[in-house]
Amino acid sequence: MNYRAVFNIIGKVVCTVAVFMIPALLISLGMGERAGTVAFLISIVASAAVGLPLALIKQKRTDIFAREGLVTVGLAWIFVSLLGALPFLLSGAIPNYIDCVFETVSGFTTTGATILGDVEHLPRGILYWRSFTHWLGGMGVLVFLLILNPLSDKNTGEGMHLLRAESPGIKASKLVPRMRDSARILYRIYIALTVLEAVLLLAGGMPLFDTVCLSFGTAGTGGFGVLNDSVASYSPYSQWVITIFMLLFAVNFNVYFLLLMRKVRAALKNEELITFALIVAVSVAVISVNIFRLCAGVEDTLRTAAFQVASIISTTGYSTVDFDLWPQLSRTVLVALMFCGACAGSTGGGAKVIRMIICFKAARRSVYKTMHPNSVRIIHVDGERIDDETVSAVGAYMLAYFIITAAAILLISLDGMSFETNFTAVAACLNNIGPGLGAVGPVCNYGAFSWLSKLVLTLSMLIGRLEIYPILLLFTPTVWRKIHR
Amino acid sequence: MNYRAVFNIIGKVVCTVAVFMIPALLISLGMGERAGTVAFLISIVASAAVGLPLALIKQKRTDIFAREGLVTVGLAWIFVSLLGALPFLLSGAIPNYIDCVFETVSGFTTTGATILGDVEHLPRGILYWRSFTHWLGGMGVLVFLLILNPLSDKNTGEGMHLLRAESPGIKASKLVPRMRDSARILYRIYIALTVLEAVLLLAGGMPLFDTVCLSFGTAGTGGFGVLNDSVASYSPYSQWVITIFMLLFAVNFNVYFLLLMRKVRAALKNEELITFALIVAVSVAVISVNIFRLCAGVEDTLRTAAFQVASIISTTGYSTVDFDLWPQLSRTVLVALMFCGACAGSTGGGAKVIRMIICFKAARRSVYKTMHPNSVRIIHVDGERIDDETVSAVGAYMLAYFIITAAAILLISLDGMSFETNFTAVAACLNNIGPGLGAVGPVCNYGAFSWLSKLVLTLSMLIGRLEIYPILLLFTPTVWRKIHR
Repeated sequence: MNYRAVFNIIGKVVCTVAVFMIPALLISLGMGERAGTVAFLISIVASAAVGLPLALIKQKRTDIFAREGLVTVGLAWIFVSLLGALPFLLSGAIPNYIDCVFETVSGFTTTGATILGDVEHLPRGILYWRSFTHWLGGMGVLVFLLILNPLSDKNTGEGMHLLRAESPGIKASKLVPRMRDSARILYRIYIALTVLEAVLLLAGGMPLFDTVCLSFGTAGTGGFGVLNDSVASYSPYSQWVITIFMLLFAVNFNVYFLLLMRKVRAALKNEELITFALIVAVSVAVISVNIFRLCAGVEDTLRTAAFQVASIISTTGYSTVDFDLWPQLSRTVLVALMFCGACAGSTGGGAKVIRMIICFKAARRSVYKTMHPNSVRIIHVDGERIDDETVSAVGAYMLAYFIITAAAILLISLDGMSFETNFTAVAACLNNIGPGLGAVGPVCNYGAFSWLSKLVLTLSMLIGRLEIYPILLLFTPTVWRKIHR
Repeated sequence: MNYRAVFNIIGKVVCTVAVFMIPALLISLGMGERAGTVAFLISIVASAAVGLPLALIKQKRTDIFAREGLVTVGLAWIFVSLLGALPFLLSGAIPNYIDCVFETVSGFTTTGATILGDVEHLPRGILYWRSFTHWLGGMGVLVFLLILNPLSDKNTGEGMHLLRAESPGIKASKLVPRMRDSARILYRIYIALTVLEAVLLLAGGMPLFDTVCLSFGTAGTGGFGVLNDSVASYSPYSQWVITIFMLLFAVNFNVYFLLLMRKVRAALKNEELITFALIVAVSVAVISVNIFRLCAGVEDTLRTAAFQVASIISTTGYSTVDFDLWPQLSRTVLVALMFCGACAGSTGGGAKVIRMIICFKAARRSVYKTMHPNSVRIIHVDGERIDDETVSAVGAYMLAYFIITAAAILLISLDGMSFETNFTAVAACLNNIGPGLGAVGPVCNYGAFSWLSKLVLTLSMLIGRLEIYPILLLFTPTVWRKIHR
């Protein structure tokens, strides 16, 4: 293991996060929030004190491999979460450090699960930081680092391993040959869409502060809001805008890149995009019929259904109604959407639509194979052949995913909450959504869980955001063993 | 498709079942149950009227392939269920035919889920038939047919395809070279164990009729009893005997064959057996600690925990307490055991321990592979290499399994029952257990579901018992198309 390189990168990540705390500090200062100002000052200094010495480690070799890439990403996210939690603790916003870490991990992983019952009384600086963690975690802080860090140009392998470990999906594909340019294009699209949403929300009369925070929350598909009722009290116009942008941020960014390259046909023929659109349309239709009598007319029904569907499938987690009170069919549709999740290469979580497609095709192939045991049938996506190794990898990923889900449910069931609560709490955290059903429904929060359950759910959020391996590897003894190459 | 061969075999299966109704007829006659006697008479005549013409179909070719084997098994089970339901309907025991089919499929698939709130008032002949369906379905009616039918000796391919389609597990292995002898050995072991259990229960003072029915229910890992409180009111001795035999019938019968061959070491070193024993031991330990304060002393705690664990992991479904009232941890452990299920090659259901082992090893390998992308690592079970095709097949099976679980939960959620009820109802039916939690808990029944949900759950039971493909293929259009060989 190239420890020097690993910790050097972690140091740079920590420093980046320290720099990103400065706007929150300025907001606290500007609003005259004394506790917040002090909290951010100390947090910035503490982060710099940890990050700078690491970032200055001299490297003998700059080469890193898959193993180092995964470990770096796993450790960097843990470092960042532990330090990013400091402002909550030091400002007194959240008195318990485990709760602070839960809230911060929930932010960076764009989960949006909260232990806070009342967010409206939080200082503005803290609220801003809480929402900003979504934005930074959505596209990935290491991906951001790739833009700044010229390292990645000397050695594309390094950048590739980091990007692969931090980006969701079955394969991280570079948009353009140079890593740094790829990361730059991704962030440009990300910023442009975020700004566009903010402008549209402002045009609808939403206050500036709410606009900024909600745009961060939508862009990262996070779900932290600034009001206790999430998005319920904003205008129908704002709700429609947020609905559309939740869906836009759940789409593979490659599609936007293709659109920018004027390859409109290739962009729109994307199989994952079409499947995603179909799932959304069917879910909205089913739920609309199911909840029609609970709503005030057609527009209200469609908006309510579309908002909640977009929120869950994009794994954002905003809500405009308490969908825990919906009929069982609609609630179950939402639970199914939790596991499906967004498209790969988006800021959304979940198992990803592309994995659903491959799983479905693999299951269909297995039906065919029982009939014709000696047949050879190849799975295609977007007309391209998916090799057996990728299919196996997706299968193994899903199995690991279900094993982790079951283990987490078992562990938090010690708290004695209902099965529905435990099942959806794990589903909502592992898939980075936020609210579940029952005691973790959209009008409730995670505060009632024990510290053990909070730790399990915190780990679930990290496992979900980083797609299992970077976190799981940290607990695998062989990773730390020397390998003779 | 060799339709003549398919329907010829189905005819023979139906005739076999008609013959097996005769003991129930005699019991009805002996007990002076008029309605039951008439019901069984008509049912036998009706079954013979359907079965005999089919069994007399002249075959041009006797060769059947994987496709025919699967379709035969799928259709035969549906025929047998539709005809086996007649006694319930005609005797007036269950007034609704859909309920009758639910109960019969629940019997043959050894699920043990019932729509009856009160079984103690059923006529003896009907109760006997209800329990006997467990015994026949446990080892498989087509496997039984293989013993009688000399066909299988001329063409081992045919018997192999039928055995493979009806027997649970990742590969049906013949114990001895000749199919017919394999089937004979399996049934001999099955009968010997059933008789042994009955003798031990009789020795404990259980009434003869209860002994016979409960032995059938245990042997097939079914779960239908003759008392409304399942096994709760029998003596602790009887409960221990049933606990042990539930576990014995959940073990791969190959182990007993090895023991008969005096290959004791090979039998006890079986990886699936060891894993199964470990899961049982850990579950009993966890639940014992968790429910200790609810029980009367150590023996009661251990017996209660062991009985329920054995009942769920063997997918039998008897109960001695209302485990729906247990603490959440214990309830969740039981739900996890539902999906794990028994060993392959046993009469139990569920996903099977061997699949859990392979899934776990495949997931572990995928962790290793992210670290060392170019590594080749082979999965071993019992020291034997599991080829990648088998691993893929197991993965695809599990994915299909989860897709079916999700679809079934969605469909029955239309009834508006709680998430816990829907989730565990599907888990209990698909895995052939019987009782779940909530409204389908051990002291409740499935009577409250709509006819649509009952159909979905009936199909789930068949899909679970026959391991997906024989039933799924019936709904696949390509199966019915002509293939040019």
